[in-house]
Amino acid sequence: MSTAIGFEIFLDASYDQSVIMVTEALKSEGFGVLTSIDVRSTLTEKLGEDFRPYVIIGACNPPLAYKALIIDPIVGLMLPCNVTVEAVPEGGSIVRIANPEVMMRAGSLEDNREMSEVAKEARVGLERVAGKLQSK
Amino acid sequence: MSTAIGFEIFLDASYDQSVIMVTEALKSEGFGVLTSIDVRSTLTEKLGEDFRPYVIIGACNPPLAYKALIIDPIVGLMLPCNVTVEAVPEGGSIVRIANPEVMMRAGSLEDNREMSEVAKEARVGLERVAGKLQSK
Repeated sequence: MSTAIGFEIFLDASYDQSVIMVTEALKSEGFGVLTSIDVRSTLTEKLGEDFRPYVIIGACNPPLAYKALIIDPIVGLMLPCNVTVEAVPEGGSIVRIANPEVMMRAGSLEDNREMSEVAKEARVGLERVAGKLQSK
Repeated sequence: MSTAIGFEIFLDASYDQSVIMVTEALKSEGFGVLTSIDVRSTLTEKLGEDFRPYVIIGACNPPLAYKALIIDPIVGLMLPCNVTVEAVPEGGSIVRIANPEVMMRAGSLEDNREMSEVAKEARVGLERVAGKLQSK
């Protein structure tokens, strides 16, 4: 379930249903959806290429994002937290959730104690989201 | 100009003008704007907090994104490339551009030779964007 960059969950549900389940699980942990990129439509529109149903969701917990931006506005380069949902050709969907602590390490921001506490809080919340989805 | 996570440029231009300049510079290097998060409005709306003008732009070069997604769909957790524009209270704006190679390292994807070539190509393009802005 855990990968180098975050969490990965297989859902035995259709793509559309999975997107709804993910959105609801995020909401239940205080993460709203700020952006949603329909990768399939984008690639069709821009390149005329076919791709499986795939969405990149930009999830954000506003109080945590606000805390992080106050500490160091460079953190905007790592916001929002990405969550992807991808249709599996054989059935079901793969959900991936980026781990904010890994992203903070990328930005060398983990040495800041306050920032690393915010990242930890976000990671714990998203881990709960992953757990809720896993148990479905 | 270079930071641990990317590139930082000061523009002696208003926030609104800077957002236009950044969007044009991205476009000239093949990066479209897929998402745009008005951080100030979001924080006002969600938390009732005041914040300086600040936008998180999700920039994407479709051919490069497509190549990367074919190599490993986990890369969606690091797409699009974030670019932020922030008003400086004393005047001017700060532009920050995430370095895709740093993001790939975060995802432990840099060991894949093909992926690291795509990341390098994206980094070179965004570095040119930074250079164009720097020379204004």
